[in-house]
Amino acid sequence: MNRFFEVRGQNPDSRARTGLLRTAHGDIETPVFMQVGTQGTVKTLSPLELKETGSQIILGNTYHLYLRPGTSVIEKAGGLQCFSGWNHPILTDSGGYQVYSLAGLRKISDDGVVFQSHIDGSSHDFTPESTMDIQLSLGSDIMMVLDECPPYPSSIEYVADSVKRTNAWAKRCRDHFEKMGSKYGYEQHLFGIVQGSIYPDLRRESVSALVDLDFPGYAIGGLSIGEPKPVLFELVETCTAMLPEAKPRYLMGMGKPEDLVEGISLGVDMFDCVLPTRNARKGQLFTWSGPMNLRNAKYKDDFRPIDAECSCYACQQFSRAYIRHLFHAREILALRLASLHNLHFYHSLVAGCRASIADGSFTLWRQRFYENYQISNHTQSTVLT
Amino acid sequence: MNRFFEVRGQNPDSRARTGLLRTAHGDIETPVFMQVGTQGTVKTLSPLELKETGSQIILGNTYHLYLRPGTSVIEKAGGLQCFSGWNHPILTDSGGYQVYSLAGLRKISDDGVVFQSHIDGSSHDFTPESTMDIQLSLGSDIMMVLDECPPYPSSIEYVADSVKRTNAWAKRCRDHFEKMGSKYGYEQHLFGIVQGSIYPDLRRESVSALVDLDFPGYAIGGLSIGEPKPVLFELVETCTAMLPEAKPRYLMGMGKPEDLVEGISLGVDMFDCVLPTRNARKGQLFTWSGPMNLRNAKYKDDFRPIDAECSCYACQQFSRAYIRHLFHAREILALRLASLHNLHFYHSLVAGCRASIADGSFTLWRQRFYENYQISNHTQSTVLT
Repeated sequence: MNRFFEVRGQNPDSRARTGLLRTAHGDIETPVFMQVGTQGTVKTLSPLELKETGSQIILGNTYHLYLRPGTSVIEKAGGLQCFSGWNHPILTDSGGYQVYSLAGLRKISDDGVVFQSHIDGSSHDFTPESTMDIQLSLGSDIMMVLDECPPYPSSIEYVADSVKRTNAWAKRCRDHFEKMGSKYGYEQHLFGIVQGSIYPDLRRESVSALVDLDFPGYAIGGLSIGEPKPVLFELVETCTAMLPEAKPRYLMGMGKPEDLVEGISLGVDMFDCVLPTRNARKGQLFTWSGPMNLRNAKYKDDFRPIDAECSCYACQQFSRAYIRHLFHAREILALRLASLHNLHFYHSLVAGCRASIADGSFTLWRQRFYENYQISNHTQSTVLT
Repeated sequence: MNRFFEVRGQNPDSRARTGLLRTAHGDIETPVFMQVGTQGTVKTLSPLELKETGSQIILGNTYHLYLRPGTSVIEKAGGLQCFSGWNHPILTDSGGYQVYSLAGLRKISDDGVVFQSHIDGSSHDFTPESTMDIQLSLGSDIMMVLDECPPYPSSIEYVADSVKRTNAWAKRCRDHFEKMGSKYGYEQHLFGIVQGSIYPDLRRESVSALVDLDFPGYAIGGLSIGEPKPVLFELVETCTAMLPEAKPRYLMGMGKPEDLVEGISLGVDMFDCVLPTRNARKGQLFTWSGPMNLRNAKYKDDFRPIDAECSCYACQQFSRAYIRHLFHAREILALRLASLHNLHFYHSLVAGCRASIADGSFTLWRQRFYENYQISNHTQSTVLT
């Protein structure tokens, strides 16, 4: 039995499965949705509220935390859990993705990435070794290797080179991580990241090289950045079909509720995305009937809760009309209640998957979910991403 | 015995007193600080958190709520308590103050005020009668008469005219309120407002006319708008000395912690101010040692709570270093934790006054408060108002 991860249930009609991830800061039931706490906080919410939504693990962004407040402050505090008051599991990315998406001038070489801070323009560099040191200091329960995420579209030649570099970095990360050991007396874990853009052979090459390095878990990166959805899901299955059954699989940066259900069907165990919280702040709320834009005039005197089936604080105590008013009055409580509700919905969604996989009814559960969850053309065209 | 208000304790060395205000939505221990919930929400906080800070009553702004979401929406919801989820006492102002401070073109006549919305420029008018109708629809436990608040400084001639108009409006408000009766089956109460700027004789004239109208409570308005502090406190005492002992006295729009202690010494029972929440959002935190600006560099790795004596969620769970980080990262949780702490401090401050008045130690309590509460020159010069 794998002490870190255990597969507990398997849907007979798909790759969907349930499992348990054991970390020093608590166990995590999978499939799991991990909300993003970019700067050491999930935007608008407190740790207490996060726990109430059903959150099991938070994702922190190494790039942001390294720049502000700085690794040394978090290290002095005893790690990100102590610093942020979230005394539960934390996963951190390597910082690479934000270097590509946020930093100004940057230069990628085989040694690593040199970049300029988006805050003050100062120059920094991330190497496979330095991103390990930073994540060790952050005290992450699950750390990620430094990788390169090529933009979509990229030529097969570029991606082939990039995959080789990412695999070489993965080995350097693993070696440095093994040399340094955990920082705070509890076990930390390092995941590899599969890249290869939309090229199935390069994806397979990437999986193969990472599996040889024997990580305790594997992420699928470089997707959901513009490629068509059917292509995306085919590539996910290419990866999950090859990845070891006994190790957790994490699809990075996805997605909408329907994407999670699809990903789970394809054997994904872990998800993260800013969508539920970012869209909440723009007034898009997720319900079992589909998404709704609460800013719409039709909710002006609608005194029903956001979702009659939801047990979150926002739905138990406030009406659509009131929360809509808060949005139009630009009140922070609007952002809070919407974020709280959306996260509660996401966690209920994956909890529904978990329960139905466990009792053998996932195929039916998924079918009913799609029947009820209406994505109108109007909603699709105005969807906030 | 006055059913609505009862004086329970009296400090022998000053006018300070404790009392109980009974409303349909709950009893209020006085002296009380009322936080401002301008648009049907106290900025950044939920009703649950407000209750936890020790809040007993919230002030709503008629001008804002009338414009957005509009009186009819709140009436359909069954009043502001039902609409906002704050099922405890609510006091509303008349809307007059915001007309003077926020609205664009406005014209005051003996009949009322015509003004343009600061949101869309549309034209509206408040009369004594219409502000009663609006506040009745809001379901306010305590309503305020329409008044004119002359700017500081204003000539004695202008203020003399203004006081006459305000007193005439007060009578029209009372008459209309008595004619209409309460809206939702529970008792609503109407307070008069003393004006008169810095002119003691006009203040006395105002008090005298309002006392003749026999309101259940009296506010002292038109202060804390630029006049020197010693003048302000002399005028407060001019009013409290003349106002009936058996009726609650409400000093509008004040103030800093030390102002509350002074006001209480002068016999004031109720206060409201945006200062604790507004300054919180700028990083100014109140502690028993005095105010501090949490954005300062010296708190970068200060892992102590804001105030070691404080039992609020912010002080129990988070460090100065973490909350400072949240401020610099522009995270909403910073505004929430700071607002929560400052309101908790304000409510603890008035609770300390109440307890020490009740047990006869208020004079000593006040002396010790001033000894510990350091307002440094630096803090004074950077104070955020």
